Amino acid sequence: MKILIKDVLLKGATQDIFINNGSIEEISGRCTREADKVINGRNKAALPSLINGHTHAAMTLFRGFADDMPLKNWLEEKIWALESKLTEEDVYWGTKLACLEMIKNGVTAFNDMYWHWEGTARAAAEMGVRGLISAVFIDMFDRKKGQEQIELNRALFDLSERYKPYVTFTFGPHAIYTVSEGSLQWMRDFSEKHNILIHMHLAETLDENRFADEKYGLTPVKFLDHIGVLSERFIGCHGCVLNEDDCRTLRERRAKLVHIPVSNLKLAVGSIFPHFLMKNEGIPYCFGTDGCASNNHLDLIETMKFASLIAKFANHDPTMLPARETFDIATKAAAGIFNLGDWEIEVGKSPDIILIDLNRPEFVPNFDIWSDIVYASNGSVVDTVICMGRVLMENRYVPGEEDILRKVKKTAKALVAR
Amino acid sequence: MKILIKDVLLKGATQDIFINNGSIEEISGRCTREADKVINGRNKAALPSLINGHTHAAMTLFRGFADDMPLKNWLEEKIWALESKLTEEDVYWGTKLACLEMIKNGVTAFNDMYWHWEGTARAAAEMGVRGLISAVFIDMFDRKKGQEQIELNRALFDLSERYKPYVTFTFGPHAIYTVSEGSLQWMRDFSEKHNILIHMHLAETLDENRFADEKYGLTPVKFLDHIGVLSERFIGCHGCVLNEDDCRTLRERRAKLVHIPVSNLKLAVGSIFPHFLMKNEGIPYCFGTDGCASNNHLDLIETMKFASLIAKFANHDPTMLPARETFDIATKAAAGIFNLGDWEIEVGKSPDIILIDLNRPEFVPNFDIWSDIVYASNGSVVDTVICMGRVLMENRYVPGEEDILRKVKKTAKALVAR
Repeated sequence: MKILIKDVLLKGATQDIFINNGSIEEISGRCTREADKVINGRNKAALPSLINGHTHAAMTLFRGFADDMPLKNWLEEKIWALESKLTEEDVYWGTKLACLEMIKNGVTAFNDMYWHWEGTARAAAEMGVRGLISAVFIDMFDRKKGQEQIELNRALFDLSERYKPYVTFTFGPHAIYTVSEGSLQWMRDFSEKHNILIHMHLAETLDENRFADEKYGLTPVKFLDHIGVLSERFIGCHGCVLNEDDCRTLRERRAKLVHIPVSNLKLAVGSIFPHFLMKNEGIPYCFGTDGCASNNHLDLIETMKFASLIAKFANHDPTMLPARETFDIATKAAAGIFNLGDWEIEVGKSPDIILIDLNRPEFVPNFDIWSDIVYASNGSVVDTVICMGRVLMENRYVPGEEDILRKVKKTAKALVAR
Repeated sequence: MKILIKDVLLKGATQDIFINNGSIEEISGRCTREADKVINGRNKAALPSLINGHTHAAMTLFRGFADDMPLKNWLEEKIWALESKLTEEDVYWGTKLACLEMIKNGVTAFNDMYWHWEGTARAAAEMGVRGLISAVFIDMFDRKKGQEQIELNRALFDLSERYKPYVTFTFGPHAIYTVSEGSLQWMRDFSEKHNILIHMHLAETLDENRFADEKYGLTPVKFLDHIGVLSERFIGCHGCVLNEDDCRTLRERRAKLVHIPVSNLKLAVGSIFPHFLMKNEGIPYCFGTDGCASNNHLDLIETMKFASLIAKFANHDPTMLPARETFDIATKAAAGIFNLGDWEIEVGKSPDIILIDLNRPEFVPNFDIWSDIVYASNGSVVDTVICMGRVLMENRYVPGEEDILRKVKKTAKALVAR
C-alpha cells in the first residue's frame, strides 16, 4: 500500500510524505509519485503516533461500573467479581472497543496485561494496531497453579506466531505479591532465551512495598534484582514507591518503567512516580493509561498533561517535564522501550503517523505545537491515523465503529447480569 | 425563540424538552408544541451547562507563547511584557476565541478578570454567553493610581448597562500584594451598595502568604476579614494556601472560593486547594480554568477530572470528590455562586443546556453518566449548546468560527511582533 500525504505541516514546513508499506520513502515539498491513497494534509500536522505503555484493554467493559471506592473493596467486590465471569468473547469485544478508542486518540501500539490472551490478540490484529500482549500470570505462591500458568504461557508464545505482525507476545507476571519466586525465575530464563519482554506491576502502592519488606526483607525492586529478573527486557509499571537505591539498581540492570499518573491519582495510591530520580539516573520510561476501570479513558494526550503537570507540582518546579520532552517520552522513548524502531518521521524510518487537525481553537495562535498538544488539547484533535502502512482512521472515522459500540454495550450489560 | 429538543436522555429517561425564551416550559415523553427550532436529541444526553469560575479570557492570545518557566520569569519577562502592548481590539479578539473555545467545551458562563474591560464585554455579548466581567484592579499601593482605578471602575459599572443581559459587572482587585487597603475598602462599600461581586486572587502561592505576613502580620484571608472585605459577595480564586482558621473565617463571612487545579499544578505553586477543609466547613466553591497562559485549555470537563483526582490523591482517599459531586460543583454550585439561579433542567427553571453525544467510545458501556463525563471524556463530547434560550452550537459547529480562528492568528502574531 502506497500512501501520499500532501501539504502537511512537518517540523515547521509544509511537506509531502510518501509511505510505501509503512516505510517513509520520500519527504519533499512536492512529491509526484503514484499512490494508492492520497490524503489531504492541509491545516494538519504530521506527528509520530502515541504508544500506550500499560493497559488492560478489555477493561473498557467495566468503564464507570465502579468508581470512587476504597481500593480494596473496589478490587475485591467489583472488579474481581466481574472478571471471574469473563469469557474470551467478552475480552475480544472489550479490546475491540479499546483499540477503537486508542485509534481515535492517536495511539497505535499498546502494552497489555489481561485474561483470555487470544481474545485480546484477535481484536488487536483485526483492528490493525500493534499489541504487545501478555496473559496475566498469577500463581498466588501455589506450585500447581504456577505450573499451569507456565504451560499456558508456553502455548500462548507458540500461538502468538499466528497474530504476527500485529501481536508480540510478552510475559505479564502480575506483581511480586501474586507471583512466586519460582515462576518469576522460569519467566526470566524463557524471556532471555526467546527475547521476550516482561511486563509487571512494580512498586504501585505502599502496601506492595510493605508486603515485599515482610516476605523478603527487601523492596520490590531489590527482591526482583536478587532473583535476577531485572534486565533490559523488564518493564515495571507504576513505580510510585521507589527510592534512590531502587532507581540506581533499575539503571544498572537497564530496566524500564511506565508512569501511569491518572490511575495513581484516581486510586489515591499514596505516592507518585519520582520523575526527578528517573531523570537523574537516566532511566528510560514512557506513559500508560492503565485500564478503563481505573482511569477511565485511553487518551494518552490527556495522560501527557497529567504527567507533565504532576512532575512540576511534585517537584515545586514549573520547568520539569516541558512539553517537547513529554511528547518525546510518549512517542520516541516508548518506541525504544517496546523495540518498535526509530519513531521519527524521516526517510527510511517506519513510525506510525498521526495527523492533527490544526483548525481548532486549541491550536490558535499556535506559537508552539508541543505546548499546544500537551497542554491545550486532547485525543479529539487527532484526525487521521496510519499504522504499519494502513490508514486506520480518516476524518475521525474508523470503519465499523458503530458496530463495535453497539456490540460492546450489549456485551457489558450481559456480563454484569450474568 | 421557542426550542424543542426531541428524544433526549434526561435523568435516565427519554424526554422532549420545550424551552421558551430560555425558560423550560415542558418536559414530557412527547411534546407537541410548535417551536422555531427543533433539535434531534437521539443518542444525546441533556445536562446543565458548565460554568468557568475564574479565567482571563483574552489570554488565549498567549497560549503556548511561554511555558515551562519559573513563575517569576514567566510573569515578568513574558506575560507582563506582552500585556503592556495589548489594545482593546486585541482583548476583543482574544475573548472571542475564548468564548468560542468555551462554547465548544460546554461552558456558557465565565467569571473574568482582565485589562480593557469593554473588549471583553463586547466579545462576550456578541458570542451570546454570560460574562461576569471585572477590570483588573491594581494600584501597587499608590494613592493616585488607586483613585484612577476607582474612577475607571465607576465608569465601567455604568457602561455595563449597555451589555445586559450578557454581561454583569464585577470588581477584580488583583490580589492583596497589588491592591491597597484603601482601594479594597472603596470596593467593599461600592459592592455592598450596588450588590456587586468581588473577584480576587486569594492565597494562590506561598509567596503571597509570606507577603501578607510581613506587611500585615496576618494571612491573606485574615487581612481581608480585618478590613471587612469578606462577605457573601466575595469570591476568592485559587485558595491553595489556606489553614483551618482561614476556612472558618471564610465560612462565617459566607465567602466563596474557586478551585483552579490545572493552573496550580502547571505553575507548581507549592500547595493545593484543601478540599477536605472546604467540605468540613461547607464553604461553597466551584472550578475555574484560569487563563490560557497558565492552563492552556478552557476545557472545564478536563478541569473536573483534575480536581476530582487531585482531591483523592492529596487526601489519600479514592472516595473524595466522586463524579456526581464534581459535576454538581461545576454546574449547580457555580450557578449559586454567580447568582445565575437554579441550574437544574426542570420546568420553570432557566439553566443553560448542553447536549452530550453518547455515540462515542467514552460513553460505552455507559453504566454511569457522571463517571463517564468526569473521568472518561473531555469537552469534545459536547454536541449542542443552548445559552439564554439561543442555540450557540449545533453538531459542534459555531457560526463564524473560521473567521475567529483566522483573525486571532493574525492578532496574536501582530501582538508579539509589536
